[in-house]
Amino acid sequence: MEITDKKFRLFAGNTHPKLAQEIADILDTPLSAITLKKFSCGEIFVNLEETVRGRDVFIINTINRETVSEDFMETFIMCDAAKRSFAERVHVIIPHFGYARQDKIHDARESISAKLMAGLLTKSGADHVITLHLHADQIQAFFDVPVDNLSPKRMLVDKIKEQNLENPIIVSPDAGGAKYAKKIADMLGVELAILHKSRPAHNQAVLTHLIGNVEGKTAILVDDMVDTAGSVVGAKEALIKAGANKELCLVTTHPVFSGPAVDRLREAKFHKIIATNSMPLPKGSEDLNIEVVSVAPLIANVIQNVMEKRSVSKLFF
Amino acid sequence: MEITDKKFRLFAGNTHPKLAQEIADILDTPLSAITLKKFSCGEIFVNLEETVRGRDVFIINTINRETVSEDFMETFIMCDAAKRSFAERVHVIIPHFGYARQDKIHDARESISAKLMAGLLTKSGADHVITLHLHADQIQAFFDVPVDNLSPKRMLVDKIKEQNLENPIIVSPDAGGAKYAKKIADMLGVELAILHKSRPAHNQAVLTHLIGNVEGKTAILVDDMVDTAGSVVGAKEALIKAGANKELCLVTTHPVFSGPAVDRLREAKFHKIIATNSMPLPKGSEDLNIEVVSVAPLIANVIQNVMEKRSVSKLFF
Amino acid sequence: MEITDKKFRLFAGNTHPKLAQEIADILDTPLSAITLKKFSCGEIFVNLEETVRGRDVFIINTINRETVSEDFMETFIMCDAAKRSFAERVHVIIPHFGYARQDKIHDARESISAKLMAGLLTKSGADHVITLHLHADQIQAFFDVPVDNLSPKRMLVDKIKEQNLENPIIVSPDAGGAKYAKKIADMLGVELAILHKSRPAHNQAVLTHLIGNVEGKTAILVDDMVDTAGSVVGAKEALIKAGANKELCLVTTHPVFSGPAVDRLREAKFHKIIATNSMPLPKGSEDLNIEVVSVAPLIANVIQNVMEKRSVSKLFF
Amino acid sequence: MEITDKKFRLFAGNTHPKLAQEIADILDTPLSAITLKKFSCGEIFVNLEETVRGRDVFIINTINRETVSEDFMETFIMCDAAKRSFAERVHVIIPHFGYARQDKIHDARESISAKLMAGLLTKSGADHVITLHLHADQIQAFFDVPVDNLSPKRMLVDKIKEQNLENPIIVSPDAGGAKYAKKIADMLGVELAILHKSRPAHNQAVLTHLIGNVEGKTAILVDDMVDTAGSVVGAKEALIKAGANKELCLVTTHPVFSGPAVDRLREAKFHKIIATNSMPLPKGSEDLNIEVVSVAPLIANVIQNVMEKRSVSKLFF
Amino acid sequence: MEITDKKFRLFAGNTHPKLAQEIADILDTPLSAITLKKFSCGEIFVNLEETVRGRDVFIINTINRETVSEDFMETFIMCDAAKRSFAERVHVIIPHFGYARQDKIHDARESISAKLMAGLLTKSGADHVITLHLHADQIQAFFDVPVDNLSPKRMLVDKIKEQNLENPIIVSPDAGGAKYAKKIADMLGVELAILHKSRPAHNQAVLTHLIGNVEGKTAILVDDMVDTAGSVVGAKEALIKAGANKELCLVTTHPVFSGPAVDRLREAKFHKIIATNSMPLPKGSEDLNIEVVSVAPLIANVIQNVMEKRSVSKLFF
Amino acid sequence: MEITDKKFRLFAGNTHPKLAQEIADILDTPLSAITLKKFSCGEIFVNLEETVRGRDVFIINTINRETVSEDFMETFIMCDAAKRSFAERVHVIIPHFGYARQDKIHDARESISAKLMAGLLTKSGADHVITLHLHADQIQAFFDVPVDNLSPKRMLVDKIKEQNLENPIIVSPDAGGAKYAKKIADMLGVELAILHKSRPAHNQAVLTHLIGNVEGKTAILVDDMVDTAGSVVGAKEALIKAGANKELCLVTTHPVFSGPAVDRLREAKFHKIIATNSMPLPKGSEDLNIEVVSVAPLIANVIQNVMEKRSVSKLFF
Repeated sequence: MEITDKKFRLFAGNTHPKLAQEIADILDTPLSAITLKKFSCGEIFVNLEETVRGRDVFIINTINRETVSEDFMETFIMCDAAKRSFAERVHVIIPHFGYARQDKIHDARESISAKLMAGLLTKSGADHVITLHLHADQIQAFFDVPVDNLSPKRMLVDKIKEQNLENPIIVSPDAGGAKYAKKIADMLGVELAILHKSRPAHNQAVLTHLIGNVEGKTAILVDDMVDTAGSVVGAKEALIKAGANKELCLVTTHPVFSGPAVDRLREAKFHKIIATNSMPLPKGSEDLNIEVVSVAPLIANVIQNVMEKRSVSKLFF
Repeated sequence: MEITDKKFRLFAGNTHPKLAQEIADILDTPLSAITLKKFSCGEIFVNLEETVRGRDVFIINTINRETVSEDFMETFIMCDAAKRSFAERVHVIIPHFGYARQDKIHDARESISAKLMAGLLTKSGADHVITLHLHADQIQAFFDVPVDNLSPKRMLVDKIKEQNLENPIIVSPDAGGAKYAKKIADMLGVELAILHKSRPAHNQAVLTHLIGNVEGKTAILVDDMVDTAGSVVGAKEALIKAGANKELCLVTTHPVFSGPAVDRLREAKFHKIIATNSMPLPKGSEDLNIEVVSVAPLIANVIQNVMEKRSVSKLFF
Repeated sequence: MEITDKKFRLFAGNTHPKLAQEIADILDTPLSAITLKKFSCGEIFVNLEETVRGRDVFIINTINRETVSEDFMETFIMCDAAKRSFAERVHVIIPHFGYARQDKIHDARESISAKLMAGLLTKSGADHVITLHLHADQIQAFFDVPVDNLSPKRMLVDKIKEQNLENPIIVSPDAGGAKYAKKIADMLGVELAILHKSRPAHNQAVLTHLIGNVEGKTAILVDDMVDTAGSVVGAKEALIKAGANKELCLVTTHPVFSGPAVDRLREAKFHKIIATNSMPLPKGSEDLNIEVVSVAPLIANVIQNVMEKRSVSKLFF
Repeated sequence: MEITDKKFRLFAGNTHPKLAQEIADILDTPLSAITLKKFSCGEIFVNLEETVRGRDVFIINTINRETVSEDFMETFIMCDAAKRSFAERVHVIIPHFGYARQDKIHDARESISAKLMAGLLTKSGADHVITLHLHADQIQAFFDVPVDNLSPKRMLVDKIKEQNLENPIIVSPDAGGAKYAKKIADMLGVELAILHKSRPAHNQAVLTHLIGNVEGKTAILVDDMVDTAGSVVGAKEALIKAGANKELCLVTTHPVFSGPAVDRLREAKFHKIIATNSMPLPKGSEDLNIEVVSVAPLIANVIQNVMEKRSVSKLFF
Repeated sequence: MEITDKKFRLFAGNTHPKLAQEIADILDTPLSAITLKKFSCGEIFVNLEETVRGRDVFIINTINRETVSEDFMETFIMCDAAKRSFAERVHVIIPHFGYARQDKIHDARESISAKLMAGLLTKSGADHVITLHLHADQIQAFFDVPVDNLSPKRMLVDKIKEQNLENPIIVSPDAGGAKYAKKIADMLGVELAILHKSRPAHNQAVLTHLIGNVEGKTAILVDDMVDTAGSVVGAKEALIKAGANKELCLVTTHPVFSGPAVDRLREAKFHKIIATNSMPLPKGSEDLNIEVVSVAPLIANVIQNVMEKRSVSKLFF
Repeated sequence: MEITDKKFRLFAGNTHPKLAQEIADILDTPLSAITLKKFSCGEIFVNLEETVRGRDVFIINTINRETVSEDFMETFIMCDAAKRSFAERVHVIIPHFGYARQDKIHDARESISAKLMAGLLTKSGADHVITLHLHADQIQAFFDVPVDNLSPKRMLVDKIKEQNLENPIIVSPDAGGAKYAKKIADMLGVELAILHKSRPAHNQAVLTHLIGNVEGKTAILVDDMVDTAGSVVGAKEALIKAGANKELCLVTTHPVFSGPAVDRLREAKFHKIIATNSMPLPKGSEDLNIEVVSVAPLIANVIQNVMEKRSVSKLFF
């Protein structure tokens, strides 16, 4: 892949150097030199080692499990350094956008942290944000700058097809994910089932309901992100109880896999877990039978199209 | 209902005078005097007839079917008049917030009009927005000012219970509405079914899928808004074909009922339609067997709590 | 006319397709593809069908009689769509800028709607506004972005000269228009008269005063806009009573001609009405003996100069 | 005059201490202590000597002839000091708002300095501006904060009536002032004449035209401001040549009287000059037979109404 | 200490609960209820448990060693929660403002992180910031909102006097701290010495220079903050070599004491270390002979004065 | 020096035409035509005589002694004219940035005028500021736009070296300047001494303290600016009393030399005064033995690098 206008800089933060390098390789361009330090007092220090005056600057950073605050802060500081040094435009690439689930008021007097992060990113100097499969499409509009929200759907569907699963059915682990699960089901041309929970009364146990019929089928649980894995592991049990094949698959864009997730997933023994590299996998997950789909080509494509002023919309859907 | 601090003004726009009067009656306060004109050239003219200097100003307007542009514009101009006249704070009450469905990019190079309207409202001078059951909760975060997004769920559930339906089941007419439908089902303690559509291939007919079992049940279709009614009428047919009782109910917050809706609903002969008065019903709908749930008490409650600096969060959920 | 830098897009809204096409023809460039819809619920939908990433986008829309709110709203949404899709700059061309007469507080607690519209346009994404003969020059400064306020004076004066009127005199229909009328008079090298009204006491009839002498002359009434035509028709009577020739002319930039205007003008039988095509003429005006001066060359000239980074100031005066 | 809520501060800048004291006297409140210095290097230094935390702060300063830049700068710095010290609201009172004539682009690539000053004042911390008879009403809308534009028309008309002039006629010295002159004429119930100039060709002398008949009448020249007095003195000659009585009057809100004005006015020997104290009279003007109308009561009235949250609109017209 | 107006809320973040409680105790008011969580994925969650509508909200958080990013992020989120819940004003109390040393560009293409943090805090909703002894006074002006920068100088000087040191001299460990050291010296009425380092050539050792005479004196090293303690420990050695008494004292406002600091200070065996509680002391510092001066009374005083709208300026100097 | 991209404009204000011409000469480009007037009423008028549409516009103005307000105001108006005329970017070059010493609150309720000026400059349209040796480096961060703060240190050090002074020592006239003086001392490889003043008690005389040993040395007083020269002249006396050679030098970036400065400096008879041409020297200073170091090459270099999108950071330190 070649870009005609070479007047850009590609800076990688500390959060996902492997993805950044993959993107740079595809674009056949080196990553720009940068100094990133954390002082013993905990303050982050950023020094861009190449002039950015009048350039399009691309900053690649994701939000990892556990280090959410530091990852955002590093990104803010990188943006500020670029802007103060007279970058023409600052494009921020954040494949996994943290706080995406705090996108509305769930209870009185909470922060809407996803909106807050969007605001802080813009205040820090971001002119354009490139992200991947936001928890809700509406988050795109939390930004006052243009956002390119890339979709890994086609890549994930291709990877599912490769598995040659017998009699597959797509299952959403909760009602909120029904819409996304339906789209994957449609692309695969298979049926859809939905799980949801209810608590009949305050002192009674939670009931898991299954809508749809999974009997004798290979259930493919799909969700935009898997965090502590509690809900997908619970879903697995409910599906098997409902007669699904024991060889279930799990498909997710963002393998957050935090806290007890790795242990739970190891125990749950999914036939296959398919995830993108929107963030690095956690330590200890090497034996989880995860098939990683790289989003580097998708992101490299956007960078190329941005620099050549071509449409990127075909990468959204 | 009485408000200790009388230092507020309540101005009603042209869009829903009946609701405004109901609110004023509950608050035992007159609507403030205002001149609202439309010149023959089409320009709107607003003159607040009572001083607003240093007052909390509440502006009540909804967005009606067909006159969306004028209703928003009138609201903008009312805000500007209040702000320029040194109102302390401008609270805008919009029970039906138009453009709520344009809350994300569906296809390349569209506007996100819901976000745009939020921005224009704030630019016009709104310091606080009070609205009802937004199409997506995330829209709340499109505003840079506080938003109170009231929920009619309890009122609607109470009204459903009053119907004493036999063997009821809640049905969402599409996958996107599953989450909301589930909440209503949980509050009623009944089961949930979900309809969704797919098109197997480009030149084949659309298929309607039903997930869940409605046989012998009284289906209650719930949706946040009913616009042209095409989808709920289609849903009705599918449900009856699937064995549901013929006496279906339809429950919606926003009776947009635009274009062919009234005719379609008349033909579909729902057993009962339950809707709020977030907007006036359209002409011709008198014979549709609609039971209207007034949201005036909900809104009056917010105004009272705002003026007395009490929490309103119990009205959100 | 040719533009060296072809990196721009020309989108026409729904309000004046003929003018947009004329401009495109002069520039020898096609109008860019766009989808503009109004749903039955009244919401407007915009989809730019050509990539705008990194381009200068020109949006052509005027504000017509009666549909003022919709015309502004469509323009706002077009701007937002362009901005969100990463247009480099959004240039909005609005030959007739509505609400221009609401440019100050006439009475307590009004909106200054012209300023509000300027603010909303900028908030929607406009980086540059091109307009024609604003009601007051000061409106230009209502915008925080650069404004090119084009003048049709030379074109109108040329058209007046073509009429070869005998013993002409320029007449302003009120004191507020005296300054503009004087400029036209000076360019033609003819004299000036001014009409104005007063009401001696509250229960007495309005008196029309004429300052200047029109006896035996061909009066040419000039005004920036003619709305309901009440004042120009009244002026005509007063002038004839004061001895002016019966063959009066009427010259205006903006033929708003709303409400009773067409009927009044038909009855008044002006010898000739000269107007620009800043907005389409209303239905029923075909027999009014109107000579239309096209501003398309003026606007095409600006677009060309903007794209070639040349001065446009010679078009202002 | 008494104000119930005493929680305000009244700071006077260096530009018009007499007016500030008059206002304070009417309000029966002392001026707040302040240090205002100019260092020998030319920098201005401001120190508010009384706490402003949580108070409404009124800053009284006008823009004088010659020291325009310093007067604006002092006002900006006073605003900043108040805002940084946590004033609740900063109300700026500027009876003569300088740069008001640079309110539009007269020629290519000029500043619109009146808009710029409005923006700088707001940026410095002004939340509210109180001014007097702006050169154009539209300037009010140059501010993004509320503006109270007071009118001295009634006071000036009363003072004109006191003169018991014989057979008076109001004359505007140019076409641009016709609208204002007409309002004064109407309030007095007298006739109106208008002067204007033209230059038939580039190398020919300027001609002064008179529209209207002043023969045997006592002409009262009215203008919002008189700067170098060139135009009113020229007007006087033209009026006498046209048969007006030699005892002319001159009525203006803002006696800028800069440069050659005092000498010209002395020579012109107006029967009477009526002006407000929106700015102090220049040195040397003591023998000019000027009758000064104080605007202190008008301003004190606004302050009182602002603090008591009453309407001030009756002072606008 | 009592506050007349009880309409405020005092929320403590996770960073310094002891200081927050001390402040609340002095004010004789309970800390407001709040939920602060960190999810296993690393996202922070904030829920204010008491209504803040229309209240002044005080948020108490400091920036600790090591957890700088999390401490700032928690503060941002607390601000957002308060603002979205319609707090009247959000006052943020940050005794140790992190990133204060990154207050200028030291080298090309760095961030000015102190300015960035100021901007992010304001963007998050802070209306007022209360802080303590900023690294540079100019940082106050990095904020667009009012800042009260409290000074512990008098408290520190009192504590130094209590030590009854023999023949004391104030020493600044570098040239940049000379100005602050001089002020302390003046308040104590003692002499001043200054250390500074230079490197004669690139491959030569750093030389430490002492300006002033410390022979036979008890040196008191003063610095606004002590981070890794490398420079003060080096200073100690240089002073002893120059003949100072071995019983040196160290006085600092912000005991950052990060990384090797505790070990270094233990080894250096200062006679006495005096520090404020602007941040908690690190683990392992219990045996360091630190005398802590509490700033709680200073902060409580500000809160009281803010609520009672009194001046706080006597606490600045 | 040649610039590849000629698409820029270089406008000089009234404050330092000689410096502007020097810069233009180095760049081998003419200054752009401009009209700058001051009307007799004191208002400034600016007209850019060359099109700036789409160009990088450089505005060169400094802040002179005495005319601070006018110089800033002229700069604001020039920025506004450029921005309103659609300049692509407005770069403002202000070698001596006035009000730099008002960069913090010295006492309660002052303005932070340096921050205010930064804000007003940005509000007026400045996109980039180029300045020289700011009084405090932190002032750079008062701007929300990129700032290039050039350093004359190397030039001044070279000029000092040329003097071949015997046994030189660098002296800071006060503790606040110690850090800057140390840098100059390090660059020269000579020692450092520091003067500071104290007042033991309120009714006692000020004492001048010298830290360091100047006996038999040629003292070089360095300071960023010399205003009334009181402090450097006092310093000279103290140094001679302390045994320094009588042939002292004075080195400063900004020769403000206001009020009594010229007389004091004449009397003080410095062996040599070295200053930059950041502002013109005052009248009467011709006989002061001042050696002027021109900063024109430094500024020309920045302009060139900005236009060619190269780093300028080597000019900062």
